[in-house]
Amino acid sequence: MYSLDRQTHLYLHIADELRSRIASGELTPGNALPSERSLSHQFEASRITLRRALDILEAEDLIERRRGRGGGTFIKSTPPTVEINRMEGFLPQLRERGRTVESQVLVTDLVSANSEIADALKVEPRAQVFRLVRLRKVSGVPMLIEDSYFPVAVAPDLLDQDLTGSLYELLTNRYKIKPTHKRETIVPARATSWEQKKLQMRPDQPILRIKRTTFTSNDAPIEFSLDVLRCDLAQVEVVTKPLPGA
Amino acid sequence: MYSLDRQTHLYLHIADELRSRIASGELTPGNALPSERSLSHQFEASRITLRRALDILEAEDLIERRRGRGGGTFIKSTPPTVEINRMEGFLPQLRERGRTVESQVLVTDLVSANSEIADALKVEPRAQVFRLVRLRKVSGVPMLIEDSYFPVAVAPDLLDQDLTGSLYELLTNRYKIKPTHKRETIVPARATSWEQKKLQMRPDQPILRIKRTTFTSNDAPIEFSLDVLRCDLAQVEVVTKPLPGA
Repeated sequence: MYSLDRQTHLYLHIADELRSRIASGELTPGNALPSERSLSHQFEASRITLRRALDILEAEDLIERRRGRGGGTFIKSTPPTVEINRMEGFLPQLRERGRTVESQVLVTDLVSANSEIADALKVEPRAQVFRLVRLRKVSGVPMLIEDSYFPVAVAPDLLDQDLTGSLYELLTNRYKIKPTHKRETIVPARATSWEQKKLQMRPDQPILRIKRTTFTSNDAPIEFSLDVLRCDLAQVEVVTKPLPGA
Repeated sequence: MYSLDRQTHLYLHIADELRSRIASGELTPGNALPSERSLSHQFEASRITLRRALDILEAEDLIERRRGRGGGTFIKSTPPTVEINRMEGFLPQLRERGRTVESQVLVTDLVSANSEIADALKVEPRAQVFRLVRLRKVSGVPMLIEDSYFPVAVAPDLLDQDLTGSLYELLTNRYKIKPTHKRETIVPARATSWEQKKLQMRPDQPILRIKRTTFTSNDAPIEFSLDVLRCDLAQVEVVTKPLPGA
């Protein structure tokens, strides 16, 4: 159990108070919080107690501390949510809400499948597969790296197509291969230095690694993808609906 | 595009080779990799090239570097996956696979809802709600902290019940309130020091924060929970099924 001394109550109270000022719009995203000195004066709290309150808000991703010139404690904006358990990807969902979405093709290649890719795509180990690495930007800011693999048989001239748009639409319209379902694992991780550079991230910012295998209606795998998502720009949402008849 | 000089190819080749030795079982989870010296000799690669290959495997969560006495590079075991878009939680899924699951109640309290909790539970701001914080252990290892809030009206004597088991079963069986659907957001983060201590984690290990609101069939919210998951013990999986009639 928590100990219930005054300091414990106080830091929770301060966190609650600041949280509701953020929620009410009194403190607005992008703006700086008052200085630690001014806040500790205002709440009649020690700097240590105040910092414990700010730690909570930082852990909840409501505020961000920046160091150096122009540093301070800033109120973060809540990123838009994108539903992961829909067949259309994140980008169409963001586009629907008026964001501009751009794609940059970083790699197109014919590579030898390692055992993980071969297992996922049900091809022989070391079989040749298409690799397509794309950087996705939302409102001009890099958000997502998609490192995707496709069996060559699925779409023999895939790499000759315009690959900046929706791959699923391309597969459906040109190759008559419709992705109908998928399985994904979601793991929090740190980005490699290459990923940090491409995503223009702070080195200490955690990312999500999303591994996806996509299937057609007869359970044939058509895509295996290793994605890296900056979650300060889009928050993953899972919606679990009632079972039919429940 | 990647530059195609020998060193670039070589580090990718080394990563692929080590990855397939792990996948084949030649290198087994828990065991140490050969030393960097021995690996760079074996692959005729510089230590820098070798380390770039190991960086990839570390980013893919296949290996782990430990410092100090008994340190080295170790092969990680793949954690079991747990499906997030099912109404039964992670623990019943792990129990089904023969794991032992324990719960420790850390906090039971009647608290004033902050604006986030009040919004989620559709109660007045500052209304009294139940708070229940539980630490969940799987096979003896702490895996999950669940910090859950419930409207008092839902289950007035909730805190007098045995709270170590399934809350959804308790709500269904005792209070005739059946959770049917939920919405969750999933954000990668760093744990606070309190969370690190409770979850017995390395400080640099990223965690998932899962925010969940659970509803009854008539869309009444009955639980709001802020969970913290150690993903080296259970990997979150999302399964997207074909739409009915698709």
